[in-house]
Amino acid sequence: MENELKKFDVAELTHMEIYTPNPDGTAWFFKEILGMIETARVGQSVYLRAYEDTYQHSLKVTERNEPGLGHMSFRASSKNALDRRVRDLEKSGAGIGWIDGDIGHGPAYQFVTPDNHLMEILWEIEEYRAPESERTVLKNRPQKRPTKGYPVRRLDHAMLMSKDVTGNKNLFMNELGFKLSEHIVKDDGTDLGIWLRVTNTVNELVFTEDDGTTEKGLGRLHHFAFLYGNTQNLYEVAEILTENGLEIEAGPFKHGISQTTSLYVYEPGGNRVELYGDPGYLIFNPEWKPVKWSKDEVEKAIMFFGSPLPESFFKKGTPQIKSSLLSK
Amino acid sequence: MENELKKFDVAELTHMEIYTPNPDGTAWFFKEILGMIETARVGQSVYLRAYEDTYQHSLKVTERNEPGLGHMSFRASSKNALDRRVRDLEKSGAGIGWIDGDIGHGPAYQFVTPDNHLMEILWEIEEYRAPESERTVLKNRPQKRPTKGYPVRRLDHAMLMSKDVTGNKNLFMNELGFKLSEHIVKDDGTDLGIWLRVTNTVNELVFTEDDGTTEKGLGRLHHFAFLYGNTQNLYEVAEILTENGLEIEAGPFKHGISQTTSLYVYEPGGNRVELYGDPGYLIFNPEWKPVKWSKDEVEKAIMFFGSPLPESFFKKGTPQIKSSLLSK
Amino acid sequence: MENELKKFDVAELTHMEIYTPNPDGTAWFFKEILGMIETARVGQSVYLRAYEDTYQHSLKVTERNEPGLGHMSFRASSKNALDRRVRDLEKSGAGIGWIDGDIGHGPAYQFVTPDNHLMEILWEIEEYRAPESERTVLKNRPQKRPTKGYPVRRLDHAMLMSKDVTGNKNLFMNELGFKLSEHIVKDDGTDLGIWLRVTNTVNELVFTEDDGTTEKGLGRLHHFAFLYGNTQNLYEVAEILTENGLEIEAGPFKHGISQTTSLYVYEPGGNRVELYGDPGYLIFNPEWKPVKWSKDEVEKAIMFFGSPLPESFFKKGTPQIKSSLLSK
Amino acid sequence: MENELKKFDVAELTHMEIYTPNPDGTAWFFKEILGMIETARVGQSVYLRAYEDTYQHSLKVTERNEPGLGHMSFRASSKNALDRRVRDLEKSGAGIGWIDGDIGHGPAYQFVTPDNHLMEILWEIEEYRAPESERTVLKNRPQKRPTKGYPVRRLDHAMLMSKDVTGNKNLFMNELGFKLSEHIVKDDGTDLGIWLRVTNTVNELVFTEDDGTTEKGLGRLHHFAFLYGNTQNLYEVAEILTENGLEIEAGPFKHGISQTTSLYVYEPGGNRVELYGDPGYLIFNPEWKPVKWSKDEVEKAIMFFGSPLPESFFKKGTPQIKSSLLSK
Repeated sequence: MENELKKFDVAELTHMEIYTPNPDGTAWFFKEILGMIETARVGQSVYLRAYEDTYQHSLKVTERNEPGLGHMSFRASSKNALDRRVRDLEKSGAGIGWIDGDIGHGPAYQFVTPDNHLMEILWEIEEYRAPESERTVLKNRPQKRPTKGYPVRRLDHAMLMSKDVTGNKNLFMNELGFKLSEHIVKDDGTDLGIWLRVTNTVNELVFTEDDGTTEKGLGRLHHFAFLYGNTQNLYEVAEILTENGLEIEAGPFKHGISQTTSLYVYEPGGNRVELYGDPGYLIFNPEWKPVKWSKDEVEKAIMFFGSPLPESFFKKGTPQIKSSLLSK
Repeated sequence: MENELKKFDVAELTHMEIYTPNPDGTAWFFKEILGMIETARVGQSVYLRAYEDTYQHSLKVTERNEPGLGHMSFRASSKNALDRRVRDLEKSGAGIGWIDGDIGHGPAYQFVTPDNHLMEILWEIEEYRAPESERTVLKNRPQKRPTKGYPVRRLDHAMLMSKDVTGNKNLFMNELGFKLSEHIVKDDGTDLGIWLRVTNTVNELVFTEDDGTTEKGLGRLHHFAFLYGNTQNLYEVAEILTENGLEIEAGPFKHGISQTTSLYVYEPGGNRVELYGDPGYLIFNPEWKPVKWSKDEVEKAIMFFGSPLPESFFKKGTPQIKSSLLSK
Repeated sequence: MENELKKFDVAELTHMEIYTPNPDGTAWFFKEILGMIETARVGQSVYLRAYEDTYQHSLKVTERNEPGLGHMSFRASSKNALDRRVRDLEKSGAGIGWIDGDIGHGPAYQFVTPDNHLMEILWEIEEYRAPESERTVLKNRPQKRPTKGYPVRRLDHAMLMSKDVTGNKNLFMNELGFKLSEHIVKDDGTDLGIWLRVTNTVNELVFTEDDGTTEKGLGRLHHFAFLYGNTQNLYEVAEILTENGLEIEAGPFKHGISQTTSLYVYEPGGNRVELYGDPGYLIFNPEWKPVKWSKDEVEKAIMFFGSPLPESFFKKGTPQIKSSLLSK
Repeated sequence: MENELKKFDVAELTHMEIYTPNPDGTAWFFKEILGMIETARVGQSVYLRAYEDTYQHSLKVTERNEPGLGHMSFRASSKNALDRRVRDLEKSGAGIGWIDGDIGHGPAYQFVTPDNHLMEILWEIEEYRAPESERTVLKNRPQKRPTKGYPVRRLDHAMLMSKDVTGNKNLFMNELGFKLSEHIVKDDGTDLGIWLRVTNTVNELVFTEDDGTTEKGLGRLHHFAFLYGNTQNLYEVAEILTENGLEIEAGPFKHGISQTTSLYVYEPGGNRVELYGDPGYLIFNPEWKPVKWSKDEVEKAIMFFGSPLPESFFKKGTPQIKSSLLSK
């Protein structure tokens, strides 16, 4: 029965921490352009939320010399579920140990991926309680829709760059019960990219091979994504981004994998942010067979129709590789 | 642990059967207007599917004197999950027993709601395998998008009319692990309407009080819904419906509950069909507190903004009440 | 030849003046909610523009005891065209005389409708020149898209209430060269409503019979409209309106006449504002036969599908009729 | 006065003729995929219309060895306007002479561009009268919206390739009263591309320098465009195109020039077809100053944001250049 339970033990992605060498620029981007609000500010970190996010914050922005991933945080389905997953993480060797918590949540168990991406899993977390000024008559919405910027709705997922995609697949599927929705498979049968889910959406967490470096353990971030909910929104925010001097790397276009529509933009700190339009398809089938794309189908898998993606999309990540010839 | 598992034991709504006194008209509606395809025809029944539906069919249309619900079919998360739910259904008194199966699926366990709505739960079911002519290059789509009618994507949910909403709440939450997403609560604290989910969407199954009759056990159908995925589609299909003489009862508009956009139309057999535009919000929080609307908020709960709903929306269902003064 | 020229002599609607008893509320609505910017403030008047408007302003808001129409301003196609139209207006008896101009434009010739709606026609007018902060890289856009509120694109048209629809038809078609796009015709063959155009859009100016009063010469305003450009935008601004306590009277829905999608909301000064989504169809045919709707088709003409319009839509205007039983 | 009238003398683009070496494939594309209906078939030609087109047809498809432009047809604003324009065309040397007419229209005056594109201008033309089966309750729509394919609404414009852009500018502005909306200007001050209008839309006719050949007088077609009306439609038809084996060359994306959203696809005869989503902005200002883009802004002018356009977009046209290295 425990094996049956495992695949339901992780409930959701709750928040991410990113690093930025330009904290004012990054905060401006998420607040003034993407309409997020600041819920706390402590030390070198600012805490932000989108109007549909469930908890106190979904994004922690921390000042550092280099952009990149701080950590990702997942919530278990229950206290028991958390205990089971921590036990397995400890056994697996990926576990680090408990931290006391952070603004908006209680104790969290930390672990690392084979690439040194820092992760945490937790149970105790604070639901957002809107102050009077942010309260809405739409009872199932935690916060009034902002009238500043072009507001995103909620954090959706992240894609991480990896020198060991198979190691990540084993870690997240075996120890944490993630399910494989789609993957791109190389000629030798190993995975080039894996799209993992814990909910009915196609992905909360994606790993793709890091072709931009030979170095291991860099734990690079490809992008993280916020949801709008339809394609029209992408064309409108793209105008705003362009008019405000922000670089759109690719899109709006439609992904083959996940069938979502999307655009990619660099926030002023240098991290790639995906804005999600159409939410694509959902997976309900408990016997789902992962959809398999071959390496020569990568373009179609990423971009179902339209112009080719720029080379930078396949190489760049944060932190950037200093010696790289691939800087734009 | 079994208690922990229960809320994951039902995975999804797989298909519905409806009755129609006008089988040709009903089939024309779903095939020529909503772009569904026929996958089988046996006896008095036609089997239909939308292009994103997972299994062999999502709609069975059966000829009868009166329109109404035939049955609804849910799939368990595993063989073990099915066994657990059947055991509890048997204990509860709602269980009927096993049937051998039907086109596209194996053995199914039947049970009834307090209102005599016929239900089934199953595990063995056939995934749709598209013939050459229906195959698509979009690998995660089971069937090519049709170029006939204005095609819906998939079956989404149904709303049933009930003389015992509390009884249904108990049955589906206690015996089947459904979760309550939102509800409308009367002054006496009992439920006027309950929105139940087994996935991350807000509802697969809804019960609302049947105010159109004093008779019990009629097992009336309020509507069942197919998804488009955005609001723009609703305006386009509404033109097609209107130009083809089909009556739109209400919408397009936006629901407060679920935040979806929607329109309601009567198919030629007399059943109310909802067409879903924007899919609304998803629920990930494992400690979700059901959103509560009071009786005097019903209008806002159903229609978040815009013109009032017609009286018929609150009274009509299928089968229709013969003596009713409420016929349009 | 002059007769041939007449129908091209008026080029466009340039701006409107409205009265408001609540100047702060009205300015808040157009600036904070609809994203317009203030270009001038003189005496009791505030001048506002939307980001696609061509000239210095498209809306002048003036404080008064009662809400209603200040005036509408049309631009001629050339200096000669203006002279020709003024000459005919003078002959017609509708003419009043020249004013020196206002902020953003030069001399304008004033005239009145049979209902005492004040109108002006002009040639000399100032194109908007964006200051550095409002400049955009989108070269064909006069002003950067705002990131405050949910910004409308441009002023589109107005509907006026009339006790003499035929008199208005004669005035605008005979003296000013307006063309009739669509009309609703009573059983006696006279017009209940007329949709007039000077461009390829279906209407810049609409007159409908004022059923809310028996008094003549009140010059009431039914609504004036700003464009978004697609239906999705209407659902988003409707959320914002509702969350900010603004009353949506009707919509979003689709008009039969003009095929546009639309919603109606009252600004805090009491005037009805239409927000236009889908811009509908354009008229290119130089032999266009006005589309004729009979009186019993009014509902379909106004609202092509969906729920019925509230009674207030057919009766209310500004200024409101004091003794009316029709106040909401 | 005649000079004042000239700029209103041409009212609209009415239809186009294209050549195809694959008449069955081309007809299949426009009928089964783009939802146009056949209104006549004579000799080697098929006549087609979209559901919002005003006249008997908007597209004539004629079998030939090579794809390319047959002719474009414009309608004058009146019989007098036609006479004035024919008189000027005769004087200019571009005129050829009168033809008796074709299916759906009367006498037409033919002329050629400096590149040998064949053009005609006419007055007498037949409005489409829908047979019973195509009649709609939407009174301002000439034909019921089809339920086959993903139907376009109406013909919008064409872009022609030219070795003498300045010559075309002179011909269409001086002899026919077209107005210049936007242009791309080379360092030497001459035009690389001109966007011409006769209505309030940004363009009915576009000329761009033909860089794909040194040969003159080929009269090549870059593309012609049909309108949908919103961006969402483009994503849906793009799926259908891709699933049906049709090559999308670029898009969906947003143009800088015109602000429309768009995609480009090759019909089976080899001609490039543009599908128009968002209709962009309209021009009302009678003193409009053409928007000027420099040569190094070409990419932004064509594609306001997103991935770069493929090389083929700038070189390919029909008829194709046999010796070209630019074939896909």
